Amino acid sequence: MNLYERYANEIAELIRSGMLRPGDRLPSVRAASAARGLSRTTIFEAYYLLETRGLVEARSRSGYYVKGDLAPAEITAPDDSRPNGRARTVDIGQLIFELLGSLNRREFVPLGSAFPSPSLFPLTRLARHLGSEMRDFDPWRLVEDLAPGNEALRRHIVLRYAMDGMVIAPTEVVLTNGAMEGLNLSLQAVTRPGNVVVVESPTFYAALQALDRLQLRALEVATSPACGIDIDALAAALKRHRVAACWLMPHFQNPLGSSMPDDRKKALVALLAEHEIPLIEDDVYAELYFGAKKPLPAKALDAKGLVIHCGSFSKCLAPGYRVGWVSGGRFAAKIEQMRLMYTLSPAIPSEAAIAAYLDRGGYDRHLRRLRAALARYLAIAMEAVQTHFPAGTRMSAPQGGYFLWLELPESVDTTKLHALARERGISLAPGPLFSTDRRSMHCLRLNYGHCGDRRFAAAMQTVGQLAAALMQG
Amino acid sequence: MNLYERYANEIAELIRSGMLRPGDRLPSVRAASAARGLSRTTIFEAYYLLETRGLVEARSRSGYYVKGDLAPAEITAPDDSRPNGRARTVDIGQLIFELLGSLNRREFVPLGSAFPSPSLFPLTRLARHLGSEMRDFDPWRLVEDLAPGNEALRRHIVLRYAMDGMVIAPTEVVLTNGAMEGLNLSLQAVTRPGNVVVVESPTFYAALQALDRLQLRALEVATSPACGIDIDALAAALKRHRVAACWLMPHFQNPLGSSMPDDRKKALVALLAEHEIPLIEDDVYAELYFGAKKPLPAKALDAKGLVIHCGSFSKCLAPGYRVGWVSGGRFAAKIEQMRLMYTLSPAIPSEAAIAAYLDRGGYDRHLRRLRAALARYLAIAMEAVQTHFPAGTRMSAPQGGYFLWLELPESVDTTKLHALARERGISLAPGPLFSTDRRSMHCLRLNYGHCGDRRFAAAMQTVGQLAAALMQG
Repeated sequence: MNLYERYANEIAELIRSGMLRPGDRLPSVRAASAARGLSRTTIFEAYYLLETRGLVEARSRSGYYVKGDLAPAEITAPDDSRPNGRARTVDIGQLIFELLGSLNRREFVPLGSAFPSPSLFPLTRLARHLGSEMRDFDPWRLVEDLAPGNEALRRHIVLRYAMDGMVIAPTEVVLTNGAMEGLNLSLQAVTRPGNVVVVESPTFYAALQALDRLQLRALEVATSPACGIDIDALAAALKRHRVAACWLMPHFQNPLGSSMPDDRKKALVALLAEHEIPLIEDDVYAELYFGAKKPLPAKALDAKGLVIHCGSFSKCLAPGYRVGWVSGGRFAAKIEQMRLMYTLSPAIPSEAAIAAYLDRGGYDRHLRRLRAALARYLAIAMEAVQTHFPAGTRMSAPQGGYFLWLELPESVDTTKLHALARERGISLAPGPLFSTDRRSMHCLRLNYGHCGDRRFAAAMQTVGQLAAALMQG
Repeated sequence: MNLYERYANEIAELIRSGMLRPGDRLPSVRAASAARGLSRTTIFEAYYLLETRGLVEARSRSGYYVKGDLAPAEITAPDDSRPNGRARTVDIGQLIFELLGSLNRREFVPLGSAFPSPSLFPLTRLARHLGSEMRDFDPWRLVEDLAPGNEALRRHIVLRYAMDGMVIAPTEVVLTNGAMEGLNLSLQAVTRPGNVVVVESPTFYAALQALDRLQLRALEVATSPACGIDIDALAAALKRHRVAACWLMPHFQNPLGSSMPDDRKKALVALLAEHEIPLIEDDVYAELYFGAKKPLPAKALDAKGLVIHCGSFSKCLAPGYRVGWVSGGRFAAKIEQMRLMYTLSPAIPSEAAIAAYLDRGGYDRHLRRLRAALARYLAIAMEAVQTHFPAGTRMSAPQGGYFLWLELPESVDTTKLHALARERGISLAPGPLFSTDRRSMHCLRLNYGHCGDRRFAAAMQTVGQLAAALMQG
């Protein structure tokens, strides 16, 4: 552990124990530096880390303060899901396309969006790299880079894995048109039509769509809004069903925001290894952790090449550039071939610009800022839920990402709430989007990645009022 | 017809009739202008058109000359294909991936490549647009443009259709990750696993791969290297088989270089309309015509929304940018939804740069230059085949695009030729890549879009010698 982490942990302990209270000012950087014999940089980094963890906030020209307490006692997490244990064909129908039609338009306050605010990203620098890289680009590379893809970018991906202690061969990394293509190809690589695939309950609607497209059956397994899929329930399901693959998001799961603790991930990987079942690990929010360090991918625990790790730059660096990747384990070559047949390659300029950005440095600085912003937004969003939503509303407590899962009182039909909110210029992602059988009728996925939008507070108030009205309705 | 086209046609007729012979100098622009009472610009445009048709050549500071005759009498076209009439599952196996592994690497002379030389494209201008568009890009548009895609670009596509006399609704245009994704999605939108799909014989290997991926059966129909699929053979096939869709390239077909005359296209569209069979029209080389005007897409003749027209900027403007489109007819909404589920969107910067390029003008000027270069390259390539390849080698006479189909003497196994050429740093696309049953064993698809490569002539000589050696066993 670094010096600054150690110091940050001390402060965190003081906050947790109540020695430091909400609103208390932390010692100034200068004073703390003198008192502890640590460099100012170290103190600053410690405070910064505490900020990214959501424990303190910087006030302009005034210093760091312990944040207004979110009073964990008042927040009740939603119950673990209890799906019915049957493998089902998927038909989530038109609701999803209606939703997609509205959630990305600026006239809607994007509480239902799947993306964080694009203003959080270093778009100007990326644009500069686009222009300068392509201006001097060797024309040959426009075809050479189609397969296996921009070499510098693949090297950076491998290096970042290495920083996390993972040894991934460059040949295992397949660049894709966003993680979406990577996930779809991975699923196709390990299944045949009619197969059963395990997903979390609730799960990301794009996973359900992919299953539908490939004529696969979804087996939803009980999932905790805090720590992810239930391993005992999974083990029981594997006894009852012949399962071809699992598609899971171990970290900051969409829509729950849940994260699997390391020992649970270990148990997961061991269980699947025993059954020789491939795991498609959707890890697109990997960089958006609020804790001290990036959670360990399930991939890191895999000795058999069964885990396919899917990542992306869309959620952490370059939205709209459509560059993701797959570390395909034993399926890498097959996935690469499928991509060549399907889309040939991601856009060469997008790959080149991202590679140049990573070359020049500054990515980690950007990520620290991004994480700090999202952690701050989470606090704002949770406070807004507590202030404006009906009593009895439960919510998850994500440790990263930008989704909060809300469980409203049972009488609130969130598809109705979605329709009402839409009339008022607010998009919502109602619970039924995230399951095969339209459960979670009274749940919402709330995107808090747009808290910087000046319309956010008023929109939360409106949605809270609409929900209250529906309860009485 | 324009004045310049009329004048060009007169000259062309003089050349055809032998009044003007190879090496003859055309009247100077000034003299012709005075003699005919036409503006110099008109004369110049006429000569330019003749140049793009490959009939005359400009010699620096000296004027225009009738080109060295390609002596049509000496060129024998390959026979029409005669596939066996059975619908077959597809398995083109590893050959294709071996090939893809080498054909885009600069150490190979790319006679087997699927791409024309990237040096033929306005890459610097596109790079400028990438940088400047994205620098000032409204961050919101990074998500807004995901669906239904860059509005300006879709408007340009619709306008270009309009210039060709086609009325296409903007809602019908679905932007895709290159035409590859468009073709794949179109095929999936109109078929179910196990269905039979008609393709040309021989056909583009990516079509065969797409059929394989979707578990479809290919029905190859007799095709003329000059004028495309045989309508009588198709009609007979439709009587014997229940066909779910046709995937055809009416213009500058890959690999034959064949082009369907308008009346044949009319008969095709009428026949398919009668059977209510969707046509996937792969028209990615549409802009690369050597004649006076762009051939009319089958889509233009379709009254029932059954024709899905697939286009791309990859072959005519922006290789590697991965932007194509589909005009999906009655299947447009379905194709758009599938793309949202599969890759979400093409790269937003690529779309924006191409839209900006089209906004600023100059596209048609670039296309004229590109067509002139390819037409010149075709003449060079045909001459090289005649000079270096074994006697009895036949070749097609493409009217556009950059593929020439060669039929070598029957004793030449082109998969062996491919292996030998590869050892000598030359890539080739052997005939068996283009059929389900590895026919066309003695055929080659020759990419002449790299004739500007200084290694081209020597490579052609080498391949010719290797072929001759193979004949002698």
